[in-house]
Amino acid sequence: MRNEPVGILGGVGPMATVYFMQRILAMTDADRDQDHVDMLVWNHASIPDRTAYIVGDSDESPGPVMAEDARQLEAAGATFIAVPCNTARAFLDEVQAAVEIDVLDIVAETVTAAQTAVPDLTTIGILATDGTLRSRIYHDTAIERGLTPVEPDDVVQKDVMSMIYDGVKAGMPVERERFDAAVAHLRARGAQAIVLGCTELSILQTDLKVEDPDVVDSLDALAAQTVIRAGGRLR
Amino acid sequence: MRNEPVGILGGVGPMATVYFMQRILAMTDADRDQDHVDMLVWNHASIPDRTAYIVGDSDESPGPVMAEDARQLEAAGATFIAVPCNTARAFLDEVQAAVEIDVLDIVAETVTAAQTAVPDLTTIGILATDGTLRSRIYHDTAIERGLTPVEPDDVVQKDVMSMIYDGVKAGMPVERERFDAAVAHLRARGAQAIVLGCTELSILQTDLKVEDPDVVDSLDALAAQTVIRAGGRLR
Repeated sequence: MRNEPVGILGGVGPMATVYFMQRILAMTDADRDQDHVDMLVWNHASIPDRTAYIVGDSDESPGPVMAEDARQLEAAGATFIAVPCNTARAFLDEVQAAVEIDVLDIVAETVTAAQTAVPDLTTIGILATDGTLRSRIYHDTAIERGLTPVEPDDVVQKDVMSMIYDGVKAGMPVERERFDAAVAHLRARGAQAIVLGCTELSILQTDLKVEDPDVVDSLDALAAQTVIRAGGRLR
Repeated sequence: MRNEPVGILGGVGPMATVYFMQRILAMTDADRDQDHVDMLVWNHASIPDRTAYIVGDSDESPGPVMAEDARQLEAAGATFIAVPCNTARAFLDEVQAAVEIDVLDIVAETVTAAQTAVPDLTTIGILATDGTLRSRIYHDTAIERGLTPVEPDDVVQKDVMSMIYDGVKAGMPVERERFDAAVAHLRARGAQAIVLGCTELSILQTDLKVEDPDVVDSLDALAAQTVIRAGGRLR
């Protein structure tokens, strides 16, 4: 037995966690069940609404609950923790402070993956919700690395939100052309790599079979790092 | 917070566990993340090979590892345990003996679901692997309930194995006609309900969008019972 399980602090949301587990399995080079990564998963759907708290509609922070979940995962034997959610990144410091083991940073992993995908990267495009753009988590990490972040103009950002909310979240199909148009728009603005910083966009790029090497998905970046750190083999 | 998480003792195999979580999410009537069932999941891929042990190719039993996993889930706060695997049902007593909380019996849940789907059921057909048929887990439960179990003849059973191994496990498509032929064969042998006692058949019936009311899937039966016991609302 490998006995070095990753702890997945999930439930934010519950479907994204299941999708993240699927991506870990799909990315692992496994001939048999036992070649897969062991996972301890807290798919904690009832964590207080992270978006409601961030935008000020609720004063119940998910932070303390996530910190307690991280402690439980550590106590159960997790050797590090992954949180498959971009919005929940806002609570990373609070979660990390609760445990001795490492908590992976989805934003840092994604920007690293973009820098690996595009050598000598200088300008990085961001596709995400209005909330993630406003929180500037991707902007700040990009700037720390000496990169220039670019985001869509208002018209394209409105369509990004529509792809996320009226498309993926509502279970409606989104045409490949719309996704490609948003990517082309960021390329025209100088982006040499485009990060997908939103679970719905992760699902969309898998559904649409997007394979552009300059399009870097946040959940895939986190999943790849998770496989490596847990001792699995990437395909 | 609901705070009554189900413990999912998984990894046997890891993909079946993810599929089981998907079915729980799909079956739950949820308007928002917080309406979903909380799940503590031990997706323990490195559990010793259950089939190899049962058929005598290995003397390393998965039972003690599964019992320890169940203890960990109980210690972490799980209020009951589901094991999304028909083959692993052979170790149910060992797992149940390790914990105070209930461990659901996938076979009992499936036969109950068949009896609910078909009132006054007397004859129940079984689609499963050769190994599951030989272990007689479905036969024994059916007989205890006063039901007559029927299984396919050798020719059809060979095609069931081929659908499982050369089809689903190998990632190859299986035509609806083959699935329907196996079901029709069991109906012709007197089965008023047909249980799918194998994860690959669960995945296949979802892929093929099988909606025959007399076809009862084991993972769906376990998922429905899991949602109910965890306090969720079924769709």
